[in-house]
Amino acid sequence: MKKRIKLYVAYDGTSYSGWQYQPNANTIEGVLNEKLSELLGEEITVIGASRTDAGVHSLGNIAVFDTSSRIPAEKISYAINPYLPDDIVVNFSCEVAPDYHPRRVNSQKTYAYRILNASFPQPLMRNDSLFLHGKLDVDAMKEAAQFFKGEHDFASFCAANSSAETTVRTIFDIDVLTDVDYLASIGKRFELGKNQDPEVSTDSPVLITILVRGSGFLYNMVRIIAGTLVEVGRGRVRPDEISSIIEAKDRSAAGPTAPACGLTHVCTVEES
Amino acid sequence: MKKRIKLYVAYDGTSYSGWQYQPNANTIEGVLNEKLSELLGEEITVIGASRTDAGVHSLGNIAVFDTSSRIPAEKISYAINPYLPDDIVVNFSCEVAPDYHPRRVNSQKTYAYRILNASFPQPLMRNDSLFLHGKLDVDAMKEAAQFFKGEHDFASFCAANSSAETTVRTIFDIDVLTDVDYLASIGKRFELGKNQDPEVSTDSPVLITILVRGSGFLYNMVRIIAGTLVEVGRGRVRPDEISSIIEAKDRSAAGPTAPACGLTHVCTVEES
Repeated sequence: MKKRIKLYVAYDGTSYSGWQYQPNANTIEGVLNEKLSELLGEEITVIGASRTDAGVHSLGNIAVFDTSSRIPAEKISYAINPYLPDDIVVNFSCEVAPDYHPRRVNSQKTYAYRILNASFPQPLMRNDSLFLHGKLDVDAMKEAAQFFKGEHDFASFCAANSSAETTVRTIFDIDVLTDVDYLASIGKRFELGKNQDPEVSTDSPVLITILVRGSGFLYNMVRIIAGTLVEVGRGRVRPDEISSIIEAKDRSAAGPTAPACGLTHVCTVEES
Repeated sequence: MKKRIKLYVAYDGTSYSGWQYQPNANTIEGVLNEKLSELLGEEITVIGASRTDAGVHSLGNIAVFDTSSRIPAEKISYAINPYLPDDIVVNFSCEVAPDYHPRRVNSQKTYAYRILNASFPQPLMRNDSLFLHGKLDVDAMKEAAQFFKGEHDFASFCAANSSAETTVRTIFDIDVLTDVDYLASIGKRFELGKNQDPEVSTDSPVLITILVRGSGFLYNMVRIIAGTLVEVGRGRVRPDEISSIIEAKDRSAAGPTAPACGLTHVCTVEES
């Protein structure tokens, strides 16, 4: 008697060709299939909730598979981690109904796009944020972000090679948050910098996070939204132009696709 | 006429055998010597302020060298970065007096030791924090940290193979700070997790930062302090035992040396 297992999988996507299995590439799904098969002694094929692109990260993507193993469902997360490379961690496992499918349930997905806005890049953040110099106007980005809320046809924010049946999606919530780069800011708690070269102490890197929660996203949608908000932050697009960019239903109306490294899938919450 | 240049160098130390040049190893100093020589067309040898260990990071280590180049001193940071690998960034350069030596000046050095205290590791933080499961008692760690303040003989906190002339050092300030893991916490701003499996939503990873500022540190001193504070956090050492551990002047009295990956040199501030 097989049972269906759900996993939450966190990963640093830097070294991977994305989530989805490809025969000659290193993928998250490929590694999970191989290592779960090794652990459980049977051929395992996982189904993922979010098929993240090459270089995109996750704090907890959902993977589902069937197994006849007698390992208790909630112990599988602990059992599989020693088999996995250190850039993939399963942080939860449980049994679900046999007909549960991660892409068929109603769910809300949250993504974070992080931008390090500073004079110089920060080596420790190079793989999980986009570095941009030249101060971005965060208030304008916040204002622009509000125009994305609600149900819209997001054809302008969909990669040209998408095969989606419909380009209508709902964005429940979107915001542009700022934090001072954590490591760079901690010195200030000791009031350092008084004697430091003024050029160094006045350089305050800002970490901008575009946080967006929606019913699902089109191919490259969050990265095109991020690329367009960067254009707003640079003063090349006015916040109120977002409405007409959406209405154009034309990919060329929106900004460029922001690089994958800045994007992290935060969570997928299923509606009960 | 040669001039003396000072650089601030940030790096992700994960792939390096530490700062100090070694003939057959990949070191920060070795890379700087090679790439500065290439840029400036003359043999360059840098002198560093903090010779960080293998796997230790920095937000701004100081390197000094002499050059006859006519590139303006403050432009060297911009000129050298395209030559450097993306895990090393020079974020400031200026001219200093010809007799300036980064290890002869009075300075205060700040280090951060980061611990991710959670049920499962976080792949995006694996190279710049130490992962520890089992909740640490942060209040006890904070209390214990205060005993390190002031001038002490830190022989108990010095690697056995050190060649330091004296083991007396001054710690000006030390604290144990907590933040919820940034990326893992942002979902909460949207009040997510209500419908999520309770085991996932109640898992709140805590990022513990031991921040210490001193007149200089003995070999492995910050890592041994961190390893000893972890013993306190685990309830194996009482906070008030730190005094007697210091008084023992014996390496075996202190806790283990915490792994290099959690350690970041934050800054070196020179006294005017």
